[in-house]
Amino acid sequence: MTGFPFDIHATDGAARTGVLKTPRGEIRTPAFMPVGTAGTVKALYMDQVRDTGADIILGNTYHLMLRPGAERVKRLGGLHKFSTWQGPILTDSGGFQVWSLSKLRKMTEDGVTFRSHIDGSEHKLSPERSIEIQADLLGADISMQLDECTAFGCSKAEAKASMDLSVRWGERSKTAFGAREAQNLFGIVQGSVFEDLRRESAERLIGTGYDGYAIGGLAVGEGFETMCEVLDFTTPHLPHERPRYLMGVGKPIDLVESVARGVDMFDCVLPTRSGRHGQAWSDYGPINIKRAEFIEDERPLNPAIDCPASRDYSRAYLNHLFRSGEYLSAMLLSWHNIAYFEDLTARMRAAIAAGTFDAFRRDFRAKWEEGRAAIESGDNFPG
Amino acid sequence: MTGFPFDIHATDGAARTGVLKTPRGEIRTPAFMPVGTAGTVKALYMDQVRDTGADIILGNTYHLMLRPGAERVKRLGGLHKFSTWQGPILTDSGGFQVWSLSKLRKMTEDGVTFRSHIDGSEHKLSPERSIEIQADLLGADISMQLDECTAFGCSKAEAKASMDLSVRWGERSKTAFGAREAQNLFGIVQGSVFEDLRRESAERLIGTGYDGYAIGGLAVGEGFETMCEVLDFTTPHLPHERPRYLMGVGKPIDLVESVARGVDMFDCVLPTRSGRHGQAWSDYGPINIKRAEFIEDERPLNPAIDCPASRDYSRAYLNHLFRSGEYLSAMLLSWHNIAYFEDLTARMRAAIAAGTFDAFRRDFRAKWEEGRAAIESGDNFPG
Ligand SMILES: [Zn+2]
Ligand SMILES: [Zn+2]
Repeated sequence: MTGFPFDIHATDGAARTGVLKTPRGEIRTPAFMPVGTAGTVKALYMDQVRDTGADIILGNTYHLMLRPGAERVKRLGGLHKFSTWQGPILTDSGGFQVWSLSKLRKMTEDGVTFRSHIDGSEHKLSPERSIEIQADLLGADISMQLDECTAFGCSKAEAKASMDLSVRWGERSKTAFGAREAQNLFGIVQGSVFEDLRRESAERLIGTGYDGYAIGGLAVGEGFETMCEVLDFTTPHLPHERPRYLMGVGKPIDLVESVARGVDMFDCVLPTRSGRHGQAWSDYGPINIKRAEFIEDERPLNPAIDCPASRDYSRAYLNHLFRSGEYLSAMLLSWHNIAYFEDLTARMRAAIAAGTFDAFRRDFRAKWEEGRAAIESGDNFPG
Repeated sequence: MTGFPFDIHATDGAARTGVLKTPRGEIRTPAFMPVGTAGTVKALYMDQVRDTGADIILGNTYHLMLRPGAERVKRLGGLHKFSTWQGPILTDSGGFQVWSLSKLRKMTEDGVTFRSHIDGSEHKLSPERSIEIQADLLGADISMQLDECTAFGCSKAEAKASMDLSVRWGERSKTAFGAREAQNLFGIVQGSVFEDLRRESAERLIGTGYDGYAIGGLAVGEGFETMCEVLDFTTPHLPHERPRYLMGVGKPIDLVESVARGVDMFDCVLPTRSGRHGQAWSDYGPINIKRAEFIEDERPLNPAIDCPASRDYSRAYLNHLFRSGEYLSAMLLSWHNIAYFEDLTARMRAAIAAGTFDAFRRDFRAKWEEGRAAIESGDNFPG
């Protein structure tokens, strides 16, 4: 496998910026992928998503295979046509959400049989079926190998057995995927918080050979410090020349610290989920828009972000919309949040290209701490 | 009072088409006003509302006085600035929603004292306070007199007493409103289903003198035939040269038949409310998007309507979004529905101007009946 061309334009310490060139468009890295769970990035129009600067979105195999069904999406022309998103799409393997959402029925070497959280119907996911769904039926530009996730706090023996299974499932995923010009397959490093397991996982994945390497099993409760430590001893074992994708991460500070450790790609439901719950993200942390301090605040969320949601609506109006339970509250806050995350990656790309990423990171951490201190002390929000 | 210039460009039978010229923009009639209850047309962006062809929106005094509060809206620059809608706004008087939503506390000659349905707080609405809220605090371009609504089925004596009260409240509303260059005040004809009461109400309102005349107390359960009858004996008593506004109406067929009887303006929550409930409007009636016949239907809702929601998304995708409970379902269906209602008024304006409104009306009724027959027999939707 050689994979989509990945040009790293600049590095600054371990941080890198570049472009992954796919047939459906270029992905500028570091990249944040908005999550389009069921063929829609919740509460946004796809052209809004594109206009925030998002080059690629993520689709969830688990959700789409259950509803509307992967074969149905194929009959309707594939996920791009169905969802109206014309840029690249990365799909997850479905494994993580079987593990977190379904009633798990039975896990064997062959795969996992589970019941849908929607209607209780029985389904099966194997490495081969996951690739069929992702690459053949949905038509993902980047497919992920099926892996097993272990809960944070599992024993080393459990983590080892799980990592071994994920390596074997990865090999089967690659065999099922075969050779494709216009689509890529990423492997997933597992091994929980254990350095030697993470190294062994990375080395065996490299032996198999993938178009990109994801880091799985983080953002599952281990906390910020542990996540950073795991990245510290994992990313050095990943090939420099291929994209690195940290799955399911995270808060803005997580992105900055992960980029500093050499990560290229992220996805997270946080911007849209917290948008539905009245939170607007900033360099200082989350603005809880329902707070009384915003009731007559005429300032926009962030006039520096080139997005109508960030720039053209007062905090007073957003406070009112949220308190009134209006759709437009979730629409505007989710839109702002996606724009904020994309703007954050754009600022990181620029800082890495300019060789000023260390200063950017220091400055960002200072603002983040200032915001946290204000929130904890009950002061007005600094942002 | 002379009111905003109202140029009637063409008539066809009792139907009329024209332009009401306000300082914030022209209103092409027949006009449909999307309802922006609490400073937002539910699930739409204001620029989408504008792009559907809506020239004016409606705001609800009752909702806005309770949350965020009329004085607060004033401090924040008025309803146009607060909501970001720059075109004309008509506000209702608040009376109808006190009657339908609040715990009504006490009705006297002076006004009505009630408790908020949101937090139980006590509020008062009098003709004078309603005008202060609408014209001074919210800054409405068109204010409505405070009136009393009677339920359908009330006795003639009740309807008469209520109509008398509404006439007196109208006089006080007009005195409170005073003389204004840039804002208009409309009176409201009441009288339930009684011809002589409607005529008396109209004549007394004309004696008081308003910038426009609304027909209230319809769309409250009387049914289509009775509504048409009431219009038949009410609109002839309204001044030809001033706009006529049928409040809270209605379905597409109601609009067509009301325009045929000389009505110029409408408002209704139907397009946005039914959009949230999975219905898309058409000349054939409501498309229930969750029906199985649409699961793999690749057609858009209506490619003839110049709106992305009507044109660029498959019914299969909309079916999936609705079944999945996605925000985008309400967003797209509400948007389509507003676009459909605006397109319907545009087609009526064109037909009246061309002198072909009778043919348009006949053709529309035929499609409407075809749709109703299909829905009742369980056939596939014809639209
Ligand atoms: Zn996440
Ligand atoms: Zn209505």
